[in-house]
Amino acid sequence: MEPTITAFATSPDEGQGLARDMRVRWALEEVGQSYQVRFVTFAQMKQRAHLALQPFGQIPTYEEDDLALFETGSILLHIAERHHGLLPEEDNARARAITWMFAAVGTVEPPIVDLEVAELLEARESWSEQRLPMVKDRIRVRLNQLSARLGEAEWLDGRFSAADIMMVHVLRRLEGSGILEEFPRLAAYIGRAQARPAYQRAFDAQLAVFTARGQS
Amino acid sequence: MEPTITAFATSPDEGQGLARDMRVRWALEEVGQSYQVRFVTFAQMKQRAHLALQPFGQIPTYEEDDLALFETGSILLHIAERHHGLLPEEDNARARAITWMFAAVGTVEPPIVDLEVAELLEARESWSEQRLPMVKDRIRVRLNQLSARLGEAEWLDGRFSAADIMMVHVLRRLEGSGILEEFPRLAAYIGRAQARPAYQRAFDAQLAVFTARGQS
Repeated sequence: MEPTITAFATSPDEGQGLARDMRVRWALEEVGQSYQVRFVTFAQMKQRAHLALQPFGQIPTYEEDDLALFETGSILLHIAERHHGLLPEEDNARARAITWMFAAVGTVEPPIVDLEVAELLEARESWSEQRLPMVKDRIRVRLNQLSARLGEAEWLDGRFSAADIMMVHVLRRLEGSGILEEFPRLAAYIGRAQARPAYQRAFDAQLAVFTARGQS
Repeated sequence: MEPTITAFATSPDEGQGLARDMRVRWALEEVGQSYQVRFVTFAQMKQRAHLALQPFGQIPTYEEDDLALFETGSILLHIAERHHGLLPEEDNARARAITWMFAAVGTVEPPIVDLEVAELLEARESWSEQRLPMVKDRIRVRLNQLSARLGEAEWLDGRFSAADIMMVHVLRRLEGSGILEEFPRLAAYIGRAQARPAYQRAFDAQLAVFTARGQS
């Protein structure tokens, strides 16, 4: 049966594709699996029905027959087990790709989310301007390390994999901050990913949610 | 062949078992797999040889034959694929446990690390005292949600799994903050985990690093 994912009923980023459902849409497009989307409002995300699927009140969720998952890393891993093409077949290469999936959400994303929190929730604090450079520098430390490891490679470890979906989407959350431009290898890496037809189909699908709303 | 992990040459937490090698030690003890430990100094962690294994200059790493991994989530997943007992055999239950492994590092740990950063790196800033309550409240939001989901259950999803190793260790990083005491279900959950013989063997092994150093 087609899986069903959840996404924001309104598009808080106005169709930029920065919400995490984009990772799941992209992965499903890579493997050619069609899917349904159930849209949830911010109010619904805090209600019992959604919390039963996602105890932290976030999107996306993933439902397929009697299975319900959350956390994009685990959803992508599940999709990769059901379909070819998202993870290497060879055991060691597969384990390394999974390492990068965890690195994306456990090591690279947290300082980026910290910047979002600083800019959204702490912007009016008297000390916000003083703290921001420290937050940005912590991101730069991680991007320096990531850029050094990527080097001139096309993808994180060999062929394109679910790890690249995770990492590219995490990095895209920095768009508009000016930081990505300091790391040309990472900017080029993101560009390669965005040129993939599956990325473009996923991007268009989430953009349509915003566009439809604007026209209604 | 026995795997080799890396750990801090000195024990920055004085044997409390808060460094992330504890997660890997614990998992290996649960499955009865012996292992070697290579100790690295803070200086070595920033050098080329270690960065080749861990591009972000952290511990632990995991080496086994020609495989090298980092990120505790992926290391535990790898151990769980080689040994019985760390993840459910049934596909859906296994996928749910992996969801919780990602939730531990991607959703619950980041605000906890943010508190460590605030207390270690920002403590001398004039605004540090003003910001700390906001950081702690963001942790409380997550722990409230986690506690609500756990309810009266013994473990996160059915039987004890690698997800519980990840989550318990993430939560333990709050020891001394006074926050865990506000969530008796979570405190009891941690206590159940700490009573496991495998936890105790892993804890003793990492404590011995500190003790040996104190006696030398």
